[in-house]
Amino acid sequence: MAVNLKEPDSLLSVEGIRLACVSAGIKKNQSKDLVLIELAQGSNCAAVFTQNKFCAAPVSVAKQNIQTNSPRYLLINSGNANAGTGEQGMNDALDSCRFVAAKGNCNATEILPFSTGVIGENLPIEKIDNALPALFENLSTDNWIEAGRGIMTTDTKLKGVSRQLEIQGKTITVTGLAKGAGMIQPNMATMLSFIATDAAINNELLQQCLAQAADLSFNSITVDSDTSTNDACVLMATAKAGNAEITQADENYKKIFKVICDVSLYLAQAIIRDAEGATKFVAIQVDHANSLKDARQVAYTVAHSPLVKTALFASDPNWGRILAAVGRAGVEFEIDKIKIFLDDICIVSNGGRDIDYTEAQGQKVMNNAEIIIRIELHTGDQSACIWTSDLSYDYVKINSEYRS
Amino acid sequence: MAVNLKEPDSLLSVEGIRLACVSAGIKKNQSKDLVLIELAQGSNCAAVFTQNKFCAAPVSVAKQNIQTNSPRYLLINSGNANAGTGEQGMNDALDSCRFVAAKGNCNATEILPFSTGVIGENLPIEKIDNALPALFENLSTDNWIEAGRGIMTTDTKLKGVSRQLEIQGKTITVTGLAKGAGMIQPNMATMLSFIATDAAINNELLQQCLAQAADLSFNSITVDSDTSTNDACVLMATAKAGNAEITQADENYKKIFKVICDVSLYLAQAIIRDAEGATKFVAIQVDHANSLKDARQVAYTVAHSPLVKTALFASDPNWGRILAAVGRAGVEFEIDKIKIFLDDICIVSNGGRDIDYTEAQGQKVMNNAEIIIRIELHTGDQSACIWTSDLSYDYVKINSEYRS
Repeated sequence: MAVNLKEPDSLLSVEGIRLACVSAGIKKNQSKDLVLIELAQGSNCAAVFTQNKFCAAPVSVAKQNIQTNSPRYLLINSGNANAGTGEQGMNDALDSCRFVAAKGNCNATEILPFSTGVIGENLPIEKIDNALPALFENLSTDNWIEAGRGIMTTDTKLKGVSRQLEIQGKTITVTGLAKGAGMIQPNMATMLSFIATDAAINNELLQQCLAQAADLSFNSITVDSDTSTNDACVLMATAKAGNAEITQADENYKKIFKVICDVSLYLAQAIIRDAEGATKFVAIQVDHANSLKDARQVAYTVAHSPLVKTALFASDPNWGRILAAVGRAGVEFEIDKIKIFLDDICIVSNGGRDIDYTEAQGQKVMNNAEIIIRIELHTGDQSACIWTSDLSYDYVKINSEYRS
Repeated sequence: MAVNLKEPDSLLSVEGIRLACVSAGIKKNQSKDLVLIELAQGSNCAAVFTQNKFCAAPVSVAKQNIQTNSPRYLLINSGNANAGTGEQGMNDALDSCRFVAAKGNCNATEILPFSTGVIGENLPIEKIDNALPALFENLSTDNWIEAGRGIMTTDTKLKGVSRQLEIQGKTITVTGLAKGAGMIQPNMATMLSFIATDAAINNELLQQCLAQAADLSFNSITVDSDTSTNDACVLMATAKAGNAEITQADENYKKIFKVICDVSLYLAQAIIRDAEGATKFVAIQVDHANSLKDARQVAYTVAHSPLVKTALFASDPNWGRILAAVGRAGVEFEIDKIKIFLDDICIVSNGGRDIDYTEAQGQKVMNNAEIIIRIELHTGDQSACIWTSDLSYDYVKINSEYRS
């Protein structure tokens, strides 16, 4: 069902990163559900986490641990979110760190735990402990594809991408994974994404790089407006490529920032392409807005409108629904001045249907699997783009049958 | 499909109000689509309108006319919203007033026009003009049921109710109609609702009465978060019951205010019961909030969550989705202090699943067609209640096939 999304045949390994993936029996079927990522000593690590007040226990633990220590291992399970699990959930998350630390000969605070799956059920911590020997045994630099599969839940496609660049004559590799298809309106990062590079870059810049890249990618997508309890995005830098450590926002920083943005955006868009039940991949571009906030508010209002989303599913150029959503966004503009476009076709101007617009033109655009809805507010010079999917029978099916 | 909603067998007539309904050929099938409501001279009239910036042409005209004159006629068509129609739409709305004024021997500014239906198509103004003779001919105090049917679009059930009370020994009648099933998150009034009483009450109090009643009813419901371009609610008072005009917020005012609230709430809830594709009627009650704004924000966030709505459709006690929605509402609270209930069953306390909760208890509640989700924030003493519906296959079906 995914919209123009191909799984990667292979991903480039990143020196200093080893991964393993096994089936621990957390998911009901026998598919892979437990991933271990090992970072070489001396690596730096940045992360952004969900803003949901009910953040999951592993998110609380990971937030704490990344502040106190340089992480050595990431432990990620799918099939159980360990969210809404109260004190027991916190104990389970801490235990999982202790178990990994014991096997990895490090401190429990050097472990970052991540969980994704059903909310409100206790983590089967014994199953995780039992699976650890096999995980450690299988650690390899070549397991990116397997790890990508191990973090999937309702995803239908593995989401991963690799890029390379040169800094000081050294080849730098960036490889990233992501999972997510529903409960997607990241509020800072989203879902789970793990991106690694062998570049040497200091911690402060690494965090800045991730925060900015996430804003332009994971924080600009929505499937269903539901910010998850477990969203997290981690950027790891192993310093194995041989470049001199980047310590300033110089040209080298800009080069790697551009590639990290590129990888983040690819992964964020992959989540939308694989959104639950999606048949369309839709960009909502708002231009000439008074502020970035206004631009994003209009874009999200259109992106979240069930009526716009069902019209997209039906390939119905029902532009009145777009107009109605823009009108209720709570943003100031003059209705005579705004323009709305489907791809390059102007559908609304002067407060109503553009005089040159024909239904046939709109229908032609709506028949495509990839559509740009562009709204010009003409109240300023700010722009924002949000990516979203349509609302289909399959979205309802997937989400009304998820636990059964 | 409507949830526990019975059509009224009859509605009480209101002295001073005559109605007529015909098929003017605006809807594609031959069903009734044009309604005329006549107010006796000396009636007062209050109204509240959509806050959508793209308000429809008839809304602009009605807003203007109700400020300048006491209305004599309301003209309501279904099948076409006359919204997003620019200058032509405004001319058509003004023309429709002129046509009615010519037949009714009054001024065009004494007419309030209302439209509901597809956005972005021009109003077939000739069809309306042609139908006016039959409309005037059929005016009768007994046509409330017919008028209720004439304003329906995707509604499956006629929505109307009558109540009586006594003031100064005089029997006062209140009868109301409403339509609406989708594009429903009223921002002040909603959809179309017309409520009439034969009480004598001055204009200022009538407007205050309607604004407050609408806040507690039409402004507290949501199907799909989509505030329509055409929402309007009108309260008419003909002064035919014989009571001395109510000019102060005294005991008599409180009596009639209570009944108007009662009628408004019945009609607002009827819209939710008949929401597009609805299989559940759900109250989201937020208690012990720091402010009314917080309470409503949490309630609306839960009510709009597609994941909560699909879980409701599936009768799945997937309380993690409710918890996740509360957590992303952007409202301050301590996660250890809040409680969440399904009807009387406590599902969340101390930051996770309540220790006494069993899935069987939750399942029993979720199997019902009417469900109360109650959230205690424990940050203050304010409360709010929002009514909403579930998200079903039929919602997608209705809204992806609406124009075809």
